[in-house]
Amino acid sequence: MGFWKSLFSQSDSVATPQRPNPVEAVGVMPQESRVVFSTERELDLYELEELCDAVGWSRRPLRKVKKAIQNSFLVVSMWEQRGAKRRLIGFARATSDHAFNATIWDVVVHPDYQSRGLGKALMRYTLKKLRGEDISNITLFADPHVVDFYRRLGFILDPEGIKGMFWYPD
Amino acid sequence: MGFWKSLFSQSDSVATPQRPNPVEAVGVMPQESRVVFSTERELDLYELEELCDAVGWSRRPLRKVKKAIQNSFLVVSMWEQRGAKRRLIGFARATSDHAFNATIWDVVVHPDYQSRGLGKALMRYTLKKLRGEDISNITLFADPHVVDFYRRLGFILDPEGIKGMFWYPD
Repeated sequence: MGFWKSLFSQSDSVATPQRPNPVEAVGVMPQESRVVFSTERELDLYELEELCDAVGWSRRPLRKVKKAIQNSFLVVSMWEQRGAKRRLIGFARATSDHAFNATIWDVVVHPDYQSRGLGKALMRYTLKKLRGEDISNITLFADPHVVDFYRRLGFILDPEGIKGMFWYPD
Repeated sequence: MGFWKSLFSQSDSVATPQRPNPVEAVGVMPQESRVVFSTERELDLYELEELCDAVGWSRRPLRKVKKAIQNSFLVVSMWEQRGAKRRLIGFARATSDHAFNATIWDVVVHPDYQSRGLGKALMRYTLKKLRGEDISNITLFADPHVVDFYRRLGFILDPEGIKGMFWYPD
């Protein structure tokens, strides 16, 4: 109950861009669907794992996922809400020094909900929240196939030749 | 006094690679110099600002610098210690989710102490500390002139085409 309270108090919602629904076609009155965003971090980790499985990410230990969520500066979840039912359909989080820099990680939209502007809405919500905290330098590391997606949102690739670099253990 | 206690209890030291010292040349016995690392975050912010000024960085509000240090996962300072005197000669910090990712920011070595392997020692100390916390994905954003420096430390540029991207407010 605390969850719902905080979901509604902390969240914004947008109308869902609906795909044609076969249920509608046979005349059943569809329940209104909304997309709701939340910054609540008390997520069901199994539901989050299911979302990440759906896009084919490697599984990660839930103990570490929990720790990462607890220690992220911002956690954003995106839900499809239909009456009293809700389904987790997107997620993003950011680490930060709470002052200058934030780095966005783990941006995911469920494949059933892709290609209808929800990734963009998720990112815009995330950027708005970070800007609301006066973070000016917002960064991320983009896989090659999503570079253009982030570019359209205003992200700049290698600005002034600044390069993303990774160090992995041997 | 608490500072010194924690400096010595938390720190490691390495022998300073010395440049030829004109004082030595005239026969004055130099005091032994050591380079000491610390993860203590109670730093004198004016001393840190002086270090950043020395490399020509834009000044930042100390209130925000303090907040950023408090909310960094790791803060590393590098000191030249000569008898009871110490001088701040290097700095680095990292944000993290304490589980998967860390991002290193604000790596600086005082110009008087550059080109003698101290930047490398500072980074190796930072990497060791992050690895000690079981962080496996260590990232940074490198200015073009230091890409090769980080490459020699084992950092990989754009691995598998992953690109660093930045978003700035309008």
